[in-house]
Formats: sequence, C-alpha cells, structure tokens
Amino acid sequence: MPQPEAVRAPQGAGLADEYRRTRRLTAALAAPLSEADATIQSMEDASPAKWHLAHTTWFWETFLLRDRLPGYRLHREDWPFLFNSYYEAEGARIARGDRGLLSRPTVAEIGRWRDHVDAAMAPLLDDPDCAALIALGIAHEQQHQELLLTDIKHALFQNPLGPAMWDRAASRGEGRGGRQDMDSDGWHSHPGGIALIGHDGQGFAFDNEGPRHRVLLEPFALARALVTNGQWDAFIADGGYRDARLWLSDGWAWVNEHGIRAPLYWGEGEAGRGREGQAFTHCGWQERDPAAPVAHISYYEADAFATWAGARLPTEFEWEAVARGQHVERAPAHDPAGGNQLDHPDDWEGGGDRAGPPIPRGGEGLFGDCWQFTRSAYLPYPRFAPCEGAVGEYNGKFMSGQFVLKGASCATVRGHSRASYRNFFYPHQRWQFTGLRLAKDI
Amino acid sequence: MPQPEAVRAPQGAGLADEYRRTRRLTAALAAPLSEADATIQSMEDASPAKWHLAHTTWFWETFLLRDRLPGYRLHREDWPFLFNSYYEAEGARIARGDRGLLSRPTVAEIGRWRDHVDAAMAPLLDDPDCAALIALGIAHEQQHQELLLTDIKHALFQNPLGPAMWDRAASRGEGRGGRQDMDSDGWHSHPGGIALIGHDGQGFAFDNEGPRHRVLLEPFALARALVTNGQWDAFIADGGYRDARLWLSDGWAWVNEHGIRAPLYWGEGEAGRGREGQAFTHCGWQERDPAAPVAHISYYEADAFATWAGARLPTEFEWEAVARGQHVERAPAHDPAGGNQLDHPDDWEGGGDRAGPPIPRGGEGLFGDCWQFTRSAYLPYPRFAPCEGAVGEYNGKFMSGQFVLKGASCATVRGHSRASYRNFFYPHQRWQFTGLRLAKDI
Amino acid sequence: MPQPEAVRAPQGAGLADEYRRTRRLTAALAAPLSEADATIQSMEDASPAKWHLAHTTWFWETFLLRDRLPGYRLHREDWPFLFNSYYEAEGARIARGDRGLLSRPTVAEIGRWRDHVDAAMAPLLDDPDCAALIALGIAHEQQHQELLLTDIKHALFQNPLGPAMWDRAASRGEGRGGRQDMDSDGWHSHPGGIALIGHDGQGFAFDNEGPRHRVLLEPFALARALVTNGQWDAFIADGGYRDARLWLSDGWAWVNEHGIRAPLYWGEGEAGRGREGQAFTHCGWQERDPAAPVAHISYYEADAFATWAGARLPTEFEWEAVARGQHVERAPAHDPAGGNQLDHPDDWEGGGDRAGPPIPRGGEGLFGDCWQFTRSAYLPYPRFAPCEGAVGEYNGKFMSGQFVLKGASCATVRGHSRASYRNFFYPHQRWQFTGLRLAKDI
Amino acid sequence: MPQPEAVRAPQGAGLADEYRRTRRLTAALAAPLSEADATIQSMEDASPAKWHLAHTTWFWETFLLRDRLPGYRLHREDWPFLFNSYYEAEGARIARGDRGLLSRPTVAEIGRWRDHVDAAMAPLLDDPDCAALIALGIAHEQQHQELLLTDIKHALFQNPLGPAMWDRAASRGEGRGGRQDMDSDGWHSHPGGIALIGHDGQGFAFDNEGPRHRVLLEPFALARALVTNGQWDAFIADGGYRDARLWLSDGWAWVNEHGIRAPLYWGEGEAGRGREGQAFTHCGWQERDPAAPVAHISYYEADAFATWAGARLPTEFEWEAVARGQHVERAPAHDPAGGNQLDHPDDWEGGGDRAGPPIPRGGEGLFGDCWQFTRSAYLPYPRFAPCEGAVGEYNGKFMSGQFVLKGASCATVRGHSRASYRNFFYPHQRWQFTGLRLAKDI
Repeated sequence: MPQPEAVRAPQGAGLADEYRRTRRLTAALAAPLSEADATIQSMEDASPAKWHLAHTTWFWETFLLRDRLPGYRLHREDWPFLFNSYYEAEGARIARGDRGLLSRPTVAEIGRWRDHVDAAMAPLLDDPDCAALIALGIAHEQQHQELLLTDIKHALFQNPLGPAMWDRAASRGEGRGGRQDMDSDGWHSHPGGIALIGHDGQGFAFDNEGPRHRVLLEPFALARALVTNGQWDAFIADGGYRDARLWLSDGWAWVNEHGIRAPLYWGEGEAGRGREGQAFTHCGWQERDPAAPVAHISYYEADAFATWAGARLPTEFEWEAVARGQHVERAPAHDPAGGNQLDHPDDWEGGGDRAGPPIPRGGEGLFGDCWQFTRSAYLPYPRFAPCEGAVGEYNGKFMSGQFVLKGASCATVRGHSRASYRNFFYPHQRWQFTGLRLAKDI
Repeated sequence: MPQPEAVRAPQGAGLADEYRRTRRLTAALAAPLSEADATIQSMEDASPAKWHLAHTTWFWETFLLRDRLPGYRLHREDWPFLFNSYYEAEGARIARGDRGLLSRPTVAEIGRWRDHVDAAMAPLLDDPDCAALIALGIAHEQQHQELLLTDIKHALFQNPLGPAMWDRAASRGEGRGGRQDMDSDGWHSHPGGIALIGHDGQGFAFDNEGPRHRVLLEPFALARALVTNGQWDAFIADGGYRDARLWLSDGWAWVNEHGIRAPLYWGEGEAGRGREGQAFTHCGWQERDPAAPVAHISYYEADAFATWAGARLPTEFEWEAVARGQHVERAPAHDPAGGNQLDHPDDWEGGGDRAGPPIPRGGEGLFGDCWQFTRSAYLPYPRFAPCEGAVGEYNGKFMSGQFVLKGASCATVRGHSRASYRNFFYPHQRWQFTGLRLAKDI
Repeated sequence: MPQPEAVRAPQGAGLADEYRRTRRLTAALAAPLSEADATIQSMEDASPAKWHLAHTTWFWETFLLRDRLPGYRLHREDWPFLFNSYYEAEGARIARGDRGLLSRPTVAEIGRWRDHVDAAMAPLLDDPDCAALIALGIAHEQQHQELLLTDIKHALFQNPLGPAMWDRAASRGEGRGGRQDMDSDGWHSHPGGIALIGHDGQGFAFDNEGPRHRVLLEPFALARALVTNGQWDAFIADGGYRDARLWLSDGWAWVNEHGIRAPLYWGEGEAGRGREGQAFTHCGWQERDPAAPVAHISYYEADAFATWAGARLPTEFEWEAVARGQHVERAPAHDPAGGNQLDHPDDWEGGGDRAGPPIPRGGEGLFGDCWQFTRSAYLPYPRFAPCEGAVGEYNGKFMSGQFVLKGASCATVRGHSRASYRNFFYPHQRWQFTGLRLAKDI
Repeated sequence: MPQPEAVRAPQGAGLADEYRRTRRLTAALAAPLSEADATIQSMEDASPAKWHLAHTTWFWETFLLRDRLPGYRLHREDWPFLFNSYYEAEGARIARGDRGLLSRPTVAEIGRWRDHVDAAMAPLLDDPDCAALIALGIAHEQQHQELLLTDIKHALFQNPLGPAMWDRAASRGEGRGGRQDMDSDGWHSHPGGIALIGHDGQGFAFDNEGPRHRVLLEPFALARALVTNGQWDAFIADGGYRDARLWLSDGWAWVNEHGIRAPLYWGEGEAGRGREGQAFTHCGWQERDPAAPVAHISYYEADAFATWAGARLPTEFEWEAVARGQHVERAPAHDPAGGNQLDHPDDWEGGGDRAGPPIPRGGEGLFGDCWQFTRSAYLPYPRFAPCEGAVGEYNGKFMSGQFVLKGASCATVRGHSRASYRNFFYPHQRWQFTGLRLAKDI
C-alpha cells in the first residue's frame, strides 16, 4: 500500500474522475460478453469475467465503504465469501477453482452492486484521508481489467468453435512497423554504474516498487524491439522445443510434461488443431503477423529462446535503467508507439470509454505490446515493508518463486504502468500478454 | 438398441406424440435456468443443462436425420464434435470435463437447433422403419431429462448461496405418508424358485434388459418401504460412518479419503456448512422430512447401512421378481403412490408439460422416489449381444465396475421405467436420486 | 473363515505336516533373493518379499499364538504395526505404499521370528479347536507364496538390467504340447440346467466359496485350452489394441491412459524397450513360446480379445460346472497336465521343497498355468455371511468392483485350489499369472 | 565447470591425495548400511545410498575415463542408463523416482566398479589437463557424500521403528556452547557499500560462483548465531504455524496442504507419532537440545520465523560480505567452532577417514551446523556462462525457482565450502540440514 507521500497526485477532482473512468471501463470491457461467457472459468489461474466485476467492487466495499464510511451496510452479507480473492485477514472464501461454478449472482445483479457502491463512494472520493486507498483501488481495478481480458481470452480459447469477443472488422489496423532486427542499431547500450531503482514517490506506486535504492550495473545492451513471431518461427524450425541444451531444467520438464511445441494460442500447439500460421485472439483465430511481437510465452520459453539467440534476458534493474533514460517513466500513455491501447480515444472509434481487442502490433517503446520477462526473481527491495492491515497482503506475500516482468502490454490501460512497475508471474504461466526483449553483455 | 420385435408398441401417432411431448418437456425442464446456470459443469460426471439440450438433439440429427433422411444436411458441421457424448464410432469429441467451458453456442442457438431438428423429424415419425430408433431416441432423451435435473442440482449445490431452481412455494406438498417401519408387516416375502428375468418384448426396452431368461432364487423378503432420513439419522448417531466393520474395503477407503459423514446434499456434510437437519434441493436448502426416503447415497453407504441394520441389499433378480408379482411392470405411471412425478398433470398445476422440482416424498410402490441399489453388478444377461453400429455403444460397453439400480426416482419421467429396467452407476456415485430398499433371507 | 464343519480334513498329523511344509516352502521361495531384492516394492498392489515372510508370520502370531496360546508374548511389540495387511480390527498400520521403505527388520531377523513362531506353534498343531484356523493360516500362507512370486517378478521387471531370480538353465523344459486350437474339438459342451455351485464342505474352503447353492445355466461351451501367445500375436497384428469397438468403456480409457499395447511383461510394451518376441520371466527376458498360454492380461484385455474372437468370457458358474464334471475338484495336484507346479517333486530336481520358476507351459486341465478371468463380478453367494472377528475381513469386505478368476496358475502351490475356489482382482490388474479361457453360447 | 584459472590449486600430489581421500570417505559413509538400507528410496528428491556410490563412480568413468583415457572401456555398458542423474547430453536414464527399485547391481558389485575406476584413474590424477575436471569430480563426490547422509536419514525416518545408522553412544559429545541470544551483541554489523561478490579464482570453485563482480549493499546486521530449537519452540507456542499473516502465500498453501506444524524430523510432526521434545537423527530418535540450532526447515518456515521475530533473511551478498570480513573463506575447515565435522580426525575416534553421525551442535562460525537460507533467488551472476559440454549442465540449468543457501552443514565435508559457495534448493525442501541465520536493517 502506498505510503501517504506516495500519493501526492492525483487527488481531488482528478482522483474522482479517474475512479469513475476506471469503473466505467471495467463495465465496458465486459459488455460484449454473454451471461455464460462471463461465468465460465478455464483454469484455476484465471477467473470469470463476472467475478472480476464483483471482486473489484468487493474491494471498494471492503476497504473503503465498510472501513471508512460510517453507517455503511454491506450490499449482501454473503457475497464477500464469494468475491474475496486471497486476503486471509478478510476471512474464508470459496476455493479459487470453484469461481466458475457461480451462475448466481447474475451479471445484472453484480451490475446493480457496482452502481450501489459507486453511489456510496461519492462522499469518499474527495476525502484526502482516503486518497491513498482510492489510488490503490483504481490501480487494483486496472489490474483486473487486464486480467479480465486475458482470462476471457483463455476461456474462449477452450471452445473448439474459436469464438470471437470482438469482430475482426472492428479491430484496429495492422502493425505499425518501426520494428527492427537485432542488428547493431537494434540495441540500447548502457554503460553500467550505479542506478537508482524504485519509485520516486511522485504519484501512485505499489508498495513493492520501493523503497528507492541504488543498484550497481555492469555495461549491457537492451534490444530496441521485442522478439517477433517470425523470429519465433525460426526458433521452432531450428528445433528449439526439442533441444534440451537450450532449456532450464524445470523448463525442460515442463515442455515434456505438457507437450509444449509453440506459444500458447498458436495454431501449431495441441489445442490449435492444425491451424498453422494462425493464433487465437479476442477476434477468434487470425493469421499471425510475422513482424508483430511474439506473445504468450513462459519464462522457460523466453529463457530458451534467449539462449538459442546467443543473448539473455535483462534484469529488472537493467530494464528500469534504460526506461528512465528514455524519460518515458511518467508518460507511457503519450508515447504514440508505446501501446497501452485500451483506453485511448484516438485508437478506438467510439472514444475514451469504448474498449476494444488487445493485439500486439509492435512499436519502438519499452512499454506496451507485451510484458517483458526479466531474469530477476520477484523479491523485496532493501528495507521493503508491506503496508499494515489486509492490504499488506497485496504484493509482499507473493515474493517467492515468481519472476519480475516490466513494461506493459496491449491489455494494460494507459497510465497504469511506469518504469518502476513490477509485474510478476510464475515461470510456467503464459496466459498474459508476455513477450521477450533480449539483453546482452557489452 | 432394440431389436425390431422389441418395439412393437408404441408406433405411428402414439410414437409421434411421445416424441413431441418428450422434446417439449426437455425444454420445459431447462426453462427456469439462466444462460449461466445452463452452462456450468460441476464435475466430470455431470454435464451442463445446455449440453443436455444439445446432445439429445445431436442424437436425433446423427442417428435419424443424417442416416435416414435423404438430403439432410447437418445444422452446423462443427457441433457434433461438441455434443457427441461417448460414441467412439462417431469420432473425436471434446474432453468430458470441458463441457462446462462452452459458453457458445448459446441456449437460444441450441433452441433454434432443436426447432430445426424437430421440424426435420416430422416425415420420419410415421416411418415404421424408423420406429425402433425413434423409441430409443425418446428413451434416450428421457434419461437425459433426469440427468439434466440431477446435474443442475449438483451444480447449484456448489454455490455457497444455495440458489433455488424452483420456489418452494410452488412445489408440491409434503410427503404422503403410507410409509412403514421395518416391522413384520413391512416386507414382501417371496418363496424363491425359478423366475423369468428380462424384458418380455412388449413395448420398448433397452438391449441390456434382454434376453429374457430364467434365474433361480432362494426364499427372501424385500422391504415395502425405502430407508428413510430418520433411519439414516439413527445410523449416523450410532457412529455408522466411523465403524470400519460395517464397510466394504473400497467403501472405507472412499469414506476416509473424502471425509464422508452424511449423504450428499445433507447440511451435516462438508459443503453443508453447518446446516444441520437440512438438505439441498432444487428449491434450495430445506428442512429434511424424517419420514421421507433418504436419497443421494452411494453403493458403499447403502451396503454399510444394510449391514448395520442386519439386512442386505437385494439382487436385481429379487427386485424384479417382486416387481412382476405386483403387476406394476407395464404401468408405473398409473400407480398414484409410485412416484415418477415429473410429467404428471395432476401433480403440477400447469398441466402435463409443466415441470417441477423432484423431491422424494415416500410411497408404497417399488417405483419412484429413488433408484434402489442392488447387490448385482451390471453385467450382460446370458446370450446378450449389443446392437450393430454406433448405438451398440449405448449400454454394453459399460458392463464393468458398476452396479444395477432398479425402480425409478422422483426425477424419472412417468412411463420411462419398468420392472426389467436396469439403471447402473459406479459404487461411489451419488448425485442421482439413489436410495435403499433392504432385503433379507427368510 | 471356515465354519467348523468345513475343516473336517486334514487334521492332526496331516495338518501339522502341511503347516511345516508350507512354512518351509515360503522360506525356500525367498531364498534366491538378496536382502535388497526382498526389500523393494514396485507398486502399491505388490509387497516386498520380506514383507510376505513377515506378514504370514504375523498371521500365525496374531490369530493363533496371541489368541489361543496362554502366556504367549509377542516377539516384538512394534512389529504388528508393520506387518498387519488390512485388518481394521487389528488396528493401525503403515501405509500400504510404504512397505518398500522398511530396510529393517532384516531378512535374517524375520527368519528368526519365523523360527520362533514355528516353535511356539507346535503345541497348537494338534489341537482340534485350532484346526480350522490353522487350515485357514496354511491357505493364507499359500496365497502369499503366489503373491511373493508375482510381486518379485514385477519388482525385478522394473530393473532395466532385466535380472533373473532363477537361471534359465535350471528351469524346467519347454511346453508339453497337448494344446489345441479353437476348432470343433476344442470345446467342452455343457447342456445347461441347474448346477450346484460352491464348496461341498469336505475339507478346507474359504468362507466366500459358500454356501453351496443352485444356479441355473443356459447351454454353453468352454474352451479346452487357454488362449495362447500366438493367438494374442494375431490379435495385436489385427489392431486389437487400437479398435475401440472391441473394448469396454473403462478398458478403452485404461488402454489410452497407460498406452497399453501388449500384455504386461511383453517386450513390445513400454517397459520392454524393444525386445520384440520376448517376455520377462523369473529367469529374465526369454523368447516367448507361441504355443504357451498368454499370461498377465487384464480383464479388459481378456474381454476385448474374446469380443475379437467372436466368443465371450465364461461365468464363474459355467467354469465350476465344467470343473466338477471333470472330477478334478479334489485333486488338481495329481493331474500331470494340470500345472500347480511349484511344490511338486517330479517337476523340480531338488525334491519337494525345492522351489523353481513359474512359467506357463500349457496343458489340457482347467487348473494351472493361468488364473482365468470370468465375467462374474466378485459378489456374495446367497446367504453368505463372513466369519466373526478379524478374520471375517479376509474375503467379504472386498466384494465390490472386482471379478472372479477360476483355476490356478503355475505359481499356485499344488492342492491349494479347487473347483469352488474364487480368486478375485480388479479389472485393470494384471501382475498375476492371469490368462483367458474362452466360452460361447451353444 | 571451472575455468582453467580457477583450478590453480590443488594439483599434482595434493589433488591425487584428495581424490583418494574423497573416494575412501564415500565408501566409509555407506559402510554402516545394510544392502537393504542402501537400496531404498523414500522420495523422488532423495536417492538410495547405493545409487550415490554408483553415480559418483559414473561421473569419473564418463567425464574422465571415457573421454580422456585412451582405450578405456566401460565397466558395464548398461549401467550408465541407471546412474546418470540428469545430464541430458549423456542420454536417456531411468526415471528419478525409480532409483529405489534397483536391487541389482548389489553394493558389492558397485564396490568392485569403484575399485576398477579408482585403479583406472591413477594415470590421470597427475595429468595437468585433467586437473580441472578432477577437482570438479572431487567437489561433486563431496556433494553426494552430504546427499547420501541426508537421503538415508530421510529413508530411515520413514521406518516406524526409528532405526539408527550409528549408535548414540559412539557419537560425539553435546553442543559446545558459545551460542548467543539475539541481543545487542549477537549481531555482526556491516556498513554497506560496494562488496566484491563471487569466487576470486584461487583454488577450485563451481562455475556458478563467478564471475566475481561488485554489488552495492545497504547497511545491515547479521546474527552471530543460528536460530535454535528453543527459539523455534517459542515460535510454535506462539501459534506461528497457524497465523497466515506470517507466511508467504505459497508457504501458507504448503503448510495447509501438508499439515505442517513443526520442522521435519520433530516428534511433534505427523510422522513423529507423539514423540514430543524429540527429533529423529542418524542415531534414531533423540531428545532435542534447546540450545542447538534448529535444522530441517523450509524456506517458507525460515521466512515466517523471521517475520515473527521482527527480522528478515539475509541476501546471499550480505552473508558473503560478512564471511569475507571474517577471513574464513579459505579455511572453514580450520575453524574449530565452524562445523564441517565429517572428515576431521579430532572429531571422531577412528581418525581421518572414519565417518560419524552429523548432528548440529552450535558454534560461532558462519560455516557448519546448517545451511542458511538467504532471500536471494538462485540466479546467474552478471556475465555468467556455463561450461561447454555435458558438465555445463551441472549448475546453470537449475537457475529458476530455487533459493541460495550459504555456509555449510554438519554433513558437509571439511574444505568443501567457502564464502562464495552457492547451495540451492526449492523453497519447500527441508530434508537437508537447513537452518536460519537472521538479518536486519540498521
């Protein structure tokens, strides 16, 4: 949870506006889904769209309304058991894998809960004492917007009919070019030295982004472009998935146990059923663009590819050092090539609140398209301490076994990420828009 | 599959009427369900309600329209992959446990498929060459009506909110009495001797009910009444679930592995969360009637109770011998105390096609309330041969590891069962309305 | 447990002799094994050889010495926890799958326990009150002799080196011929009618072989010879393992889950590592004799083969009816073509107590070579009641999910089996010498 | 694999002596074990003692004799399949969990292989070209000495009889005192700054200890003493295992899934069967010394304890920085309070090659007693590159999901560890002598 000084901006009207815009966007993202689409759960890692609509609302009701608004009564006494995610301090809850069995409450009933909570929140939105928690709640809901998108993609992918959430016709155009090969010009060089790592305290940040501290770096170079589908085709053609020497031990066991032979959602994989050259998207099965960034790979795959390419993954510190050098930290949303597409009025015909399909197209910025695996384990920074209370469970308790990812993806809302942002997943997980930016020693 | 001679009646107009009534009832049963209710799947044994609506339609399309109606084209080429259940001869299909991930096609789309198939079936309904297969298709759809009811009960039970499919207010009244204790008058005595077992060839029967053959029986007695909730309470109070001596070895392992301590759906079990004295029904959580038959028990529990009670389970042959003595074989539907409630105009306000909640209430007949475990393994009768072709997979290939159940349940449509009917489940399964009728040697 | 009248013979000196011969043979069977061989456990179904040596001794100590010999003190107070198999009435015990972790006590320590118990048993061997239990104990130890042989075969099979327990050189000769094809002369015909089934009370029998009762049979024929390796080769060559139509549903799932493509121990299977035409035996990998009976098949495989061959499995009643007609019930050990080879002085150079490798060679008798699957589920006979006390757990509690096998195998000690004998295993188990004798309707 | 410059010492006679001493010690460690003790495998993580004797021999035969000694022929062509551990480049091998099924070859046969290989190695021991690989082989065999000890402890622990490998009488004395509480004097303070991390190239080191590089540290303090059994008792008494707030999310799931409530081998745990205050050792069940270091804890437990104690785990860099300050890097073996007891003549009556039971007793040094969890994930150092060829699989391919442990344990041979040594295990593993040294920010 942010310390008070970490949330100096935005406040007041800005914060209230962002609250409303965020709440509206969550509902807009789920709008194309039927009641059934919004209910199904394809694996324990993923949650139903309806559950995301409810859980984000539970967050506001629990940590703001219940705790901060005198006299507030819970909308339904028995719903917190359903929609608490993992907060032990908030008590028991249904098993994570059973979220997809909740045909009730309905999407409409949850919609009424959302309206009820939004109305009740009004007096708190301008309360300076609540600003830090509200900023956290907005960031929380933005994270669930991305999860809603990646989870429903995984759910629809299970359907042999290959259903689309959005029409291809309505989607944005093809890749924008500007992508580069891994030639001599394709690298950001960095001389190494002492870098300041972690959030600077201006604006909101999660607790795990601090404290700011110094890290000593060796000279290195970071690729300007993400690895592309075409490059991944070459990796496969060269037998990449069959050569044990390229793989981490855990990765090789994972490849063999699950019969992995392509990124998730590629037609060449098990579930693709022979759709060579295609990938499953929110618009159904589509031809892959060889020049677009590869997405939906695991850490194991990223590491194996890097080994095959004679390179390596960057550390989170290297990535952040380059990101700061680019002065993009504070404004990824304004970088026209930077991705973060969802909530951008220019990208989507309907305007700012109109959501659309996330598809990596490629660009020069460090942010957008795909979250980028680093070889840094997700661990606490020096002198890190989680917040007090239940929200202290937000980040700190997950600090074992996972890897840090940097950047943002085509499913990340504009303004959500920053150079100090630390996303984290287990090395086998790949249902997020996860990609790969190579690094090398120089 | 029935041999031609096995389907001498009904035919012609009778068969066509039954086709239409059956199709209408299936839709009526699913009517109270939302799109989400109809989509979820709570375990591999159970299927979504929507899937039942589709699979029964696939059966008509595949075995009648495709094979018998010249020029018929499949409604959708890619749907058989989704809705074939287990017919190897009909090709590949989605994994059984993935049926609950099919948010598409929608209930409405499946409804249009049902209409399309019903319209296309019209010319075949009077075709004598098709009568045997049509009778099979009707019996098949009636079985899925029962499964739809038991599967959705299991699905709704997973929801901590305890949702109801029907209002309790609209359900039929309390138990009808007429139940008896296990005293001296509570038994049908049978002198033993040679009994004729199996279907007599009048009217429809499944292939596994024949050939009719002779079986030699020892003298025995069969309880007039099913074991009740109150008797089961006494079994629990006496430590029945904690006494290894009462249990089959496999049953004791099952009890301990799953922490079983009450019938499925009882509030005393794991998922009941402390609702003592209640049971989950299609009308939500309700007080249990001590005089009503116990339901939703496994073979292991039935056997342990019988041992505790100093009795045993009947064989399927004993049960059938008594059933024939009662002359109830052909007409369970006309026995006012016999259960088979679903499609009975007098039982439900809205008339013959209006469906309602199945709840065991108790009665004197052998049929109705609960399917009754026998100690007979489900095995072929002498000279049994499955039908030719894909429908030969209907019954014969399941003849290992399962037990025969006789009678019918409150979820069985009237007229579906008969004395020779052989239902079958694995000994651990208990999501059907399974109960217990004791037997003893005399 | 046998009722008193069931154990009229043998008694007195005969029983004492049989006790000593049985105890001696158990030790002789384990003699070729190293301490390590005797300790390992290859799967939960199988037990270490050392454990068999100990468990059989526990049986005598528990049910005879502790309960019947005044003043007897347990050899070691903490060993019953290790060597109780499944008797719930005798208290807790180590998990079945952990038996292979007992490097202590040693084989020598268990040998001293065996000697100690044998000495202590002397006064009871002539006690008529103990005769029934002693006969049971002998039969029990004979069953474990067979298990010791089949379990160690499975354990040695896991070793890629293919180690031998006995030299091939020292083994008995090749098959004895006398085998027949399935032509018109290859069948025992039986006219059907009422047959008396179950033990007649002369000599020892297990409780599950009674009570004797009448069963009504249809006319049938039973093959004179077991199905051979050569016939099984033809089944494989005809695609038997790849044709779903031949298989029970559970069997087809088993075949696909485990990648089954040949009997256990055949070089064509997964673990055979390309040893085509060979099979693993107690003498290591050996060429298969096409004329010898096929062994180590599951019920599923037996049923699929029978379907492929246009025949079926016999019922246990059919098998027993033919066996009685042959007057072999009481004397399988004296049938020179009947198998039951282990303890036969003429079969093995070293004399009566010298054990040797069990290998099916084929013969005309119903007994020997391989246990033969029937299509009868293992269920209680009419009026069956298990014995009182812990030994009542011997047979009755296993009466669900298993199938009856008749006959005896090359690993069954002479005199152990009889026409009424009911062996039982789950349909997927095949590490016993299980084979197939076809039946057909006539 | 060490780079040439990393193996400047020892060479020549020193290296040959160390080879012989190491080989002798391995055999001595296994000497108290019976053939059966040496064969069993208690879990997939652990290997049989016999397998360690063989695998270490396979290492010499494969990487030295086969590759470097002209004309050498493998002792047995089919043994590499059995005794290759995880070297993909060396081909297929038996499944890891099947190592305990190898009753053959015998300990004696493996002993002859050891002798054969030792004899064949003679000409290579003085060959400078082989020195690097020989140093690696010695370090490899020393690691397996420790594994042999921890694996057999785990195996014997499974036995309800609680067998001892060594007599308690023959074991060394009680703890040596010198342990301190966590008071103000109990901490090494460190001012932070730039530290040199990694091996300096003098003497042998594994490839994962380099390259040496600079790391920037914040000020911190490291506890002088390991956390003790008595302190752990207080953690348990305070409800440490039942308070979710103390635990990492993965750790809390692990505690609940496995019912963890004490360190492995404590009598209070599941397998201890009520032996309160005791712990299982190589000398059987023994009273715990409250002043001795706690051992056999997981990373999750270490982290939860540190949180409970208001402290944290050190990073591997902090630990190493303190270790260098103590000038103990090169000579842990000479620190009389430092542990590393196994091969020390003064510690054990029989002299240098006589091995004895490893038991943590406590001491002031950083090395010995227990490996100490750090909060550093096991990841590559900057510019790390694994060696060429199969030995490149030694360390690098395990760099995901594991944590670094520093120091050494009472089961580590003297001279094996050093300040730059990086041991690594998964966060749930605790069958090694794993303990906890706290750190804190200052």
